[in-house]
Amino acid sequence: MKLTIALLPGDGIGPEVIEQAVKVCDAIAIKYKHEIHWKKALTGAAAIDAVGDPYPDETHEVCSTSDAVLFGAIGDPKYDNDPSAKVRPEQGLLRMRKKLGLFANVRPTFTFPSLIDKSPLKRERIEGTDLVFLRELTGGIYFGKRGREDNGDTAYDTCTYTRAEIKRLARKGFELAMKRSKKLCCVDKANVLESSRLWRETVQQMEKEYPEVTVSYEFVDAVAMRLVQWPNDYDVLITENLFGDILTDEASVISGSMGLMPSASLGESIGLYEPIHGSYPQAAGKDIANPLATVLSAAMMFEDLDLTEEAGAIRDVVNASLAQGVVTEDLAEGGKSYKTSEVGDWLARNI
Amino acid sequence: MKLTIALLPGDGIGPEVIEQAVKVCDAIAIKYKHEIHWKKALTGAAAIDAVGDPYPDETHEVCSTSDAVLFGAIGDPKYDNDPSAKVRPEQGLLRMRKKLGLFANVRPTFTFPSLIDKSPLKRERIEGTDLVFLRELTGGIYFGKRGREDNGDTAYDTCTYTRAEIKRLARKGFELAMKRSKKLCCVDKANVLESSRLWRETVQQMEKEYPEVTVSYEFVDAVAMRLVQWPNDYDVLITENLFGDILTDEASVISGSMGLMPSASLGESIGLYEPIHGSYPQAAGKDIANPLATVLSAAMMFEDLDLTEEAGAIRDVVNASLAQGVVTEDLAEGGKSYKTSEVGDWLARNI
Ligand SMILES: CC(C)[C@H](C(=O)O)[C@@H](O)C(=O)O
Ligand SMILES: CC(C)[C@H](C(=O)O)[C@@H](O)C(=O)O
Repeated sequence: MKLTIALLPGDGIGPEVIEQAVKVCDAIAIKYKHEIHWKKALTGAAAIDAVGDPYPDETHEVCSTSDAVLFGAIGDPKYDNDPSAKVRPEQGLLRMRKKLGLFANVRPTFTFPSLIDKSPLKRERIEGTDLVFLRELTGGIYFGKRGREDNGDTAYDTCTYTRAEIKRLARKGFELAMKRSKKLCCVDKANVLESSRLWRETVQQMEKEYPEVTVSYEFVDAVAMRLVQWPNDYDVLITENLFGDILTDEASVISGSMGLMPSASLGESIGLYEPIHGSYPQAAGKDIANPLATVLSAAMMFEDLDLTEEAGAIRDVVNASLAQGVVTEDLAEGGKSYKTSEVGDWLARNI
Repeated sequence: MKLTIALLPGDGIGPEVIEQAVKVCDAIAIKYKHEIHWKKALTGAAAIDAVGDPYPDETHEVCSTSDAVLFGAIGDPKYDNDPSAKVRPEQGLLRMRKKLGLFANVRPTFTFPSLIDKSPLKRERIEGTDLVFLRELTGGIYFGKRGREDNGDTAYDTCTYTRAEIKRLARKGFELAMKRSKKLCCVDKANVLESSRLWRETVQQMEKEYPEVTVSYEFVDAVAMRLVQWPNDYDVLITENLFGDILTDEASVISGSMGLMPSASLGESIGLYEPIHGSYPQAAGKDIANPLATVLSAAMMFEDLDLTEEAGAIRDVVNASLAQGVVTEDLAEGGKSYKTSEVGDWLARNI
């Protein structure tokens, strides 16, 4: 198969982890006789520094004409403490999501048997945890009207949802639930927010299309609590943009290591694949960042391109590296650790 | 001292836990020679059922002419799955907060040595955790304009903050930090939301008034993660209404038992004290609910009324009940357990 994949390394440790994923994908291509054409493009602070725009038109062009996008990380602390900065790396990410129509962020959360004791949660709470969040990614308060009034002394943001936006996300949730344990949890704040009431109403109406799926409705505050108490109560969860942002990061602690958690952002056509961790500037350039989340994101990419065997081969080699202790220092527990590039080389060699 | 205290039992287990707090307060009154005049009033679903309004004017009159309000819980599942219900118990709570000007919700989170192993988090992560959230309670998306458009197919909510609203909450945070370890964390989503940028800007400007306080700024998604990873990194946290709703519920898992966590809602004058747990309808009327969170809320009330010794006496008797195993079934670990009313009697007797 011929594949064109847009490569967006981004900021901080992004370029380093992306490099390892490329090695692994190239090894897959050789083994399974594919041809991958990588198209590198700028995004984030790196793009601001280079061309003054965190998501330049050329980058959009590259992404929208590729079969998939592999993304590193975005963000630079120099923008964080300047609330008045006019251009920010994150704008690039948001614009990219919107322009590529990536309305569904898929974030699996699971535990690796060999890493379960690294979790801050007790083993008995998380053994067997295997849940997926579907976070709506192109609507809500992230994209509503915002601004200032009263000479800057009043600020507002608007959270808007349409029935159609909710439906297409919820449909992905129902479909995923059908393939899994047929349990779906809709997370909202319908006791306060009108947008949440529209979510609940819309999902309730869709229930009859999927009579086999058991749907529950929970308030976001309750889920924030129960998610780390009894994660095994959940399977597929659907929610709006901001709640998803908060809850998926919270859920990442279950696995014991952010450095392992992949994600996919899907729309009608193209998909974007990225590790859930950020740009982690403190570690940038040191060849110490854990590349596994990015490598596992590449596995999700192959899966969605219907290259299931290839995806499985990546997951297997990641499991082998964990089992044999070929890991970066964050997972080494004080034992022998490997550099980012060494882990990448090992994975590629063992595909 | 003569005290008039408004008593709002509310729904579900509210009346049962409130009854025990009253017993304890009455015992305090005898011991310390105070005179407590209790004024009971309706709220929540109980008030809707009785007079069609979850926060009737008479209740507001009672609250606003008292020295403090002791509140049970609000909420009835019969309203939750009906997104179109016109009157809801929660509206009573929101209206009460607004009309009484309770802009700061204070939620301490700490661990009890004897209960630490009940937490889903590992002992080494939470040993010594002692943090306080100050959640803004009368602004933000809870009180902004909301509605429907396009024949109900579009729903919106507005999050608005003024500099003045942020300042008065932040001031309480700085003052509290000064009394504690001089560490303050401002939680926002300033990389996306304009209202969050106003929060960050305002708090940054206040820093110079409190040069001894070390202020950090973290995004809400990062805090949702780090809070259950390294809770000891935090001391005083300030945040806006919705983020506070989510994070304080999440933080409650640290203690290992929601049934123990008190809270205070403060404004310019009167304070309202309530357990953080909800109305827990499944347990209502069974005399099994844990009354300790409500009893500890009463301790916060005495503290704020400058009756420090009285507050200490309540905390001591709660610790004694935990140490001696005079606890409801949720804390009994399969051992001997006591009824709600028995725990209340024991506490009152041992004041
Ligand atoms: C960087 C930020 C804008 C982004 C978000 O909030 O969506 C990030 O936290 C994420 O979850 O991908
Ligand atoms: C019942 C609900 C409206 C309320 C809130 O969201 O504020 C509750 O969750 C709380 O935290 O007191």
